Amino acid sequence: MVFPKASRLYIQEVCTRDGFQMEAEFIPTEQKIALINALSRTGISMIEVTSFTSPKAIPMLADAEAVMGQIDRVPGVRYAALVPNVRGCERALFCNVDEINVVMSASPSHNLANLRMTPEQSMDQLSQIAKQVDGQAFLNVSLATAFGCPFEGDVPVSRVLDTVQQFSDLGFQGVSLCDTTGMANPKQVNEICWQVQSRWPSIRFTAHFHNTRGMGLANAVAALQAGITHFDASLGGLGGCPFAPGASGNICTEDMVHMFQAMGYETEVDLESLLDMARVLPDIVKHEVPGQVAKAGPSTRRYL
Amino acid sequence: MVFPKASRLYIQEVCTRDGFQMEAEFIPTEQKIALINALSRTGISMIEVTSFTSPKAIPMLADAEAVMGQIDRVPGVRYAALVPNVRGCERALFCNVDEINVVMSASPSHNLANLRMTPEQSMDQLSQIAKQVDGQAFLNVSLATAFGCPFEGDVPVSRVLDTVQQFSDLGFQGVSLCDTTGMANPKQVNEICWQVQSRWPSIRFTAHFHNTRGMGLANAVAALQAGITHFDASLGGLGGCPFAPGASGNICTEDMVHMFQAMGYETEVDLESLLDMARVLPDIVKHEVPGQVAKAGPSTRRYL
Repeated sequence: MVFPKASRLYIQEVCTRDGFQMEAEFIPTEQKIALINALSRTGISMIEVTSFTSPKAIPMLADAEAVMGQIDRVPGVRYAALVPNVRGCERALFCNVDEINVVMSASPSHNLANLRMTPEQSMDQLSQIAKQVDGQAFLNVSLATAFGCPFEGDVPVSRVLDTVQQFSDLGFQGVSLCDTTGMANPKQVNEICWQVQSRWPSIRFTAHFHNTRGMGLANAVAALQAGITHFDASLGGLGGCPFAPGASGNICTEDMVHMFQAMGYETEVDLESLLDMARVLPDIVKHEVPGQVAKAGPSTRRYL
Repeated sequence: MVFPKASRLYIQEVCTRDGFQMEAEFIPTEQKIALINALSRTGISMIEVTSFTSPKAIPMLADAEAVMGQIDRVPGVRYAALVPNVRGCERALFCNVDEINVVMSASPSHNLANLRMTPEQSMDQLSQIAKQVDGQAFLNVSLATAFGCPFEGDVPVSRVLDTVQQFSDLGFQGVSLCDTTGMANPKQVNEICWQVQSRWPSIRFTAHFHNTRGMGLANAVAALQAGITHFDASLGGLGGCPFAPGASGNICTEDMVHMFQAMGYETEVDLESLLDMARVLPDIVKHEVPGQVAKAGPSTRRYL
């Protein structure tokens, strides 16, 4: 089976969190809300709306409550938020998010650089958050550097598996395997995705790729071939990582939707709406964005 | 078998032909020669050096004889040239090319727009060229729009197969399946590549993809999964197609080599040399190029 007959693929849009947090200029709250409202009407499954972090740590997302509180909650769309700690989780739950997403790195040095915690400290914090959520929201954890670390290099698969086991023990319902700095390759992705899914069939695994080295969509296909049905992506391909400067960001939502549709998979996302939004995104962020289909048009485009 | 245990993958660099022919400004002959000489020393399998076309049709490649005649012919590297007709083939054979590449489109309307010939006229010309070459060089044909046509849309697989049968009957030893305007998707690529290879096991099939809609490397992996071992790519991702304006060009050689190496496949290409060349390419063509790894560094790059 090279390509599975998946009935449905689910895409989470992460532009307003993973994308915007990297931007240099603050994007006005009303623009964020308008974008999320428009995204909600494209048929997208889920939106990572914002991060309930300290405004000092990520000033770009200092308006988390305002955004989360003022967006239209379209039925059928799940609204997620990243939380860095118990305080952030409290704020997110107060805003009635559908899903809480926490982060921890598979590599200790990246965890330390990114979160200023040892793996043990992170796991302890995850445990507290899991208890705090206690069924009030879906509980997801993003495992950063799951396919490689910019400091340490290869991350042993055994460490990924051990960490997922600990997440499972803490009651996490979803795990996002994140290629934080675009180091993953399709063969590796396929192998790790097979392993985690066969070991934890009841956990929802999400593939989160960056296109830092051009392999983003190839990795998405490799994950799909391993049976993954949930994917993160960012409108226009916004996003990135401070440890991979000058590089492309997250895989591009409209390019991925376009590819999956061309391959015959159902995402229930209206591609034309996404493309319309992607084409105005440069006006919002005030720079070009990496997405290709918004420039070339979909492959169904005809010339006379 | 999701990923084959290929012993070796072969990459043809098409930058100085497919890439340069699209450039607005003439690139001096000595710069072309220097670039090809440097490419010859990276371990690359083959280089499509130039096109022996009319200088009026493609002024950028008006120096075909000078380039072909003055480059160093490094042992082990194959030097190919595109020829549009019998006259061009004569010129190329006079320059002692290792491989003659001719073009024809799978879609009649693209053939007419691109070559000003009906399929029958093209096939007749291919027949003449095949007779003319008569063992003096390896005989390859590039089947343009094999995965879709910007005018007609879907190209029936049966037409691709019928056309390859005709190439086979004429004695062509190699067929390049070209996604001329970046319309191919991984599932389609995988299926067509399986079909042609099982039907004509003695023909050398080459996958030629463009990254117009971001699917270039995903398509390369899908072709690899179907057992394809020969790939075209362009340094920096140069190239393109007049019928897909504003879009990315050919898949990027250094990004593809980087991916294949990360996946454990042997290309025998020295990635660092390629990256050095890709980084000076913007100075040669006087604009940015789409390649990602030259910007981000390879995935083996470490940060402190």
